[in-house]
Amino acid sequence: MEFKVIQECKSSKARLGEIKTPHGQFETPVFMPVGTQGAVKAVSSEDLVEMGIKILLANTYHLYLRPGCGTIEKCGGLHRFINWKGPILTDSGGFQVYSLAKLRTISDEGVTFQSHLDGSRHFIGPKEAMEIQQVLGSDIVMALDECAPYPADYEYVLKSVKLTSLWAKRCVEHKKDHHQALFGIVQGGMYSDLREMSAKDLTEFCFDGYALGGLSVGEDRDTRERVVSETRRFLPDDKPIYLMGVGKPEDLVRAVSLGVDMFDCVLPTRNARNGTLFTHRGQLVIKNACHTEDDRPIDEKCGCYTCSHYSRAYLRHLFMAKELLAYRLNTIHNLYYYNQLMDDIRCAIREGRLADFRNNFFRLQQEKD
Amino acid sequence: MEFKVIQECKSSKARLGEIKTPHGQFETPVFMPVGTQGAVKAVSSEDLVEMGIKILLANTYHLYLRPGCGTIEKCGGLHRFINWKGPILTDSGGFQVYSLAKLRTISDEGVTFQSHLDGSRHFIGPKEAMEIQQVLGSDIVMALDECAPYPADYEYVLKSVKLTSLWAKRCVEHKKDHHQALFGIVQGGMYSDLREMSAKDLTEFCFDGYALGGLSVGEDRDTRERVVSETRRFLPDDKPIYLMGVGKPEDLVRAVSLGVDMFDCVLPTRNARNGTLFTHRGQLVIKNACHTEDDRPIDEKCGCYTCSHYSRAYLRHLFMAKELLAYRLNTIHNLYYYNQLMDDIRCAIREGRLADFRNNFFRLQQEKD
Repeated sequence: MEFKVIQECKSSKARLGEIKTPHGQFETPVFMPVGTQGAVKAVSSEDLVEMGIKILLANTYHLYLRPGCGTIEKCGGLHRFINWKGPILTDSGGFQVYSLAKLRTISDEGVTFQSHLDGSRHFIGPKEAMEIQQVLGSDIVMALDECAPYPADYEYVLKSVKLTSLWAKRCVEHKKDHHQALFGIVQGGMYSDLREMSAKDLTEFCFDGYALGGLSVGEDRDTRERVVSETRRFLPDDKPIYLMGVGKPEDLVRAVSLGVDMFDCVLPTRNARNGTLFTHRGQLVIKNACHTEDDRPIDEKCGCYTCSHYSRAYLRHLFMAKELLAYRLNTIHNLYYYNQLMDDIRCAIREGRLADFRNNFFRLQQEKD
Repeated sequence: MEFKVIQECKSSKARLGEIKTPHGQFETPVFMPVGTQGAVKAVSSEDLVEMGIKILLANTYHLYLRPGCGTIEKCGGLHRFINWKGPILTDSGGFQVYSLAKLRTISDEGVTFQSHLDGSRHFIGPKEAMEIQQVLGSDIVMALDECAPYPADYEYVLKSVKLTSLWAKRCVEHKKDHHQALFGIVQGGMYSDLREMSAKDLTEFCFDGYALGGLSVGEDRDTRERVVSETRRFLPDDKPIYLMGVGKPEDLVRAVSLGVDMFDCVLPTRNARNGTLFTHRGQLVIKNACHTEDDRPIDEKCGCYTCSHYSRAYLRHLFMAKELLAYRLNTIHNLYYYNQLMDDIRCAIREGRLADFRNNFFRLQQEKD
């Protein structure tokens, strides 16, 4: 993997970058849609290509449990299995082990857990995390980390940071495929000195990129932005920075200015299925009665497939009638919105007008429809 | 609407025809996918166009209740509302009133019923059926009929036939839009003489086409084919014949030879959502364990989007994981299969080899995968 900074913003830490992977290149800042179980919920890979999406995230924990590495290996790897020719980033499986699996036991060696699907017992350590992601064949793989709960006391988070550093070292040692880029994950909860410790530990291993983990776990926005901002100072400028699990459109706009290059979040896809749609003037709840006979698209400034072909009235009807098409059309719109937002941000950085873009973005978000 | 017979089969009553409507033309025999609530479940109108589908069926009962005629009228009619530029056939609403609605009261004037959605009271008579379908703006509208239950005794069915004839006359009188074609529906249950009576009554009104209603309601195949065959003799050869609600691929192949030109059925779409897929060698149940690591497409002879891009292993995984994409990909395959089957039938009639086609079709359906 190659990362290159193309343009730096003068008024903030934002930068326009480019990442090259074995499955193609993309520009940063970038938002990665989440393909939890080998599919971005409700849409096909062709839909994603048409939206202009360049890189997907897939969840190692889910794919490891179902359909299992054997199936994906026999079908020629994850790219071929899911029919996605572009870059894929896989997480380590750690986060889902902590949030979904049952009866977890953590030791220095790794995590023993029971599947949330059938209660079967499994073990994932740093070596296994690397091996599974090698079978998946993703372009960017994540080191196994321990994600402390929130809130957690200082002693717990200190131990968690130390374990994450130990596992990070082992992941570096166990990664065999030189085509795959490996990112380390900085932990440390909301404690400034632990974030510093974690960042300094990890940078010693010269990862291809650095992720900020353990955020968007219930803390308020100011706290999160403080942690991002403080931690960012201890991370190298020549590597991509990935803020995991964030977030709302306004969170992305703000985090870019703190020097974040990559994002992922289930919000656009999950909200789509709940009927909450993003527009340049804020959110729109499609089931609201005011849309019953509204012949306009969701967002008149949007160029997505949904807005080009369907009215709010029809989308509301589909949603009220629980038609499956509703989930796809809504998802196409929301992901297109996110992708376009990142495109606009990159364009603004390139043209040296990010501050103006940001002011305009927040002003429009307040406007009534 | 214009109907033209292009080619007649020498060994059966099958014929190749062409229907011209204000929204385009299509060849018969044709299968019409069912867009119950203004959407063919799980797919978009663009998907349907890509499959080569030319005409859709939409359900008046469902659309009348939700979103309601007012909404569809304000959004420019059904074609524009659902983004479908091709021909649409709407049913009269009668069948759903009998099968879904509650507390029905039938009189010579029409049917009073309660909505299955919210219990609200409604009335649909011949005049209302014509008015609603005029607002929808469909290309082919159906006369209001009374569909007798099965089994039903002779006296009941006799009354039902007489009522259907009375309503047919009133539908003809109340239809105002001369761009819309109007089809009558022959009833008469499984009684040969009542079918004859119904067919003779209806042909007096010179409908643009004739449907066979009240079939595929629980009778065995031999009975259904006897009724189709007997009734067909009393219907004009210069009008399209539509067998409502039928059916399986083998039913279509057989009914074409009895002189049927048009079909609709929820089977391909419903089966798709249940994971039962049609192939040229019979049905395939995608959840079966034998498909777990099967890298082949559903049907190696199929040219659909799903078969061109995805393996059985992936489709099984999506289905087991209840991913919404499963329903769309399966639906695309099944509808493509039906559409291709009708295409093959038309080609065989054109080339004077329908008997061979039929023998080959049934031989392959028996073969193991």
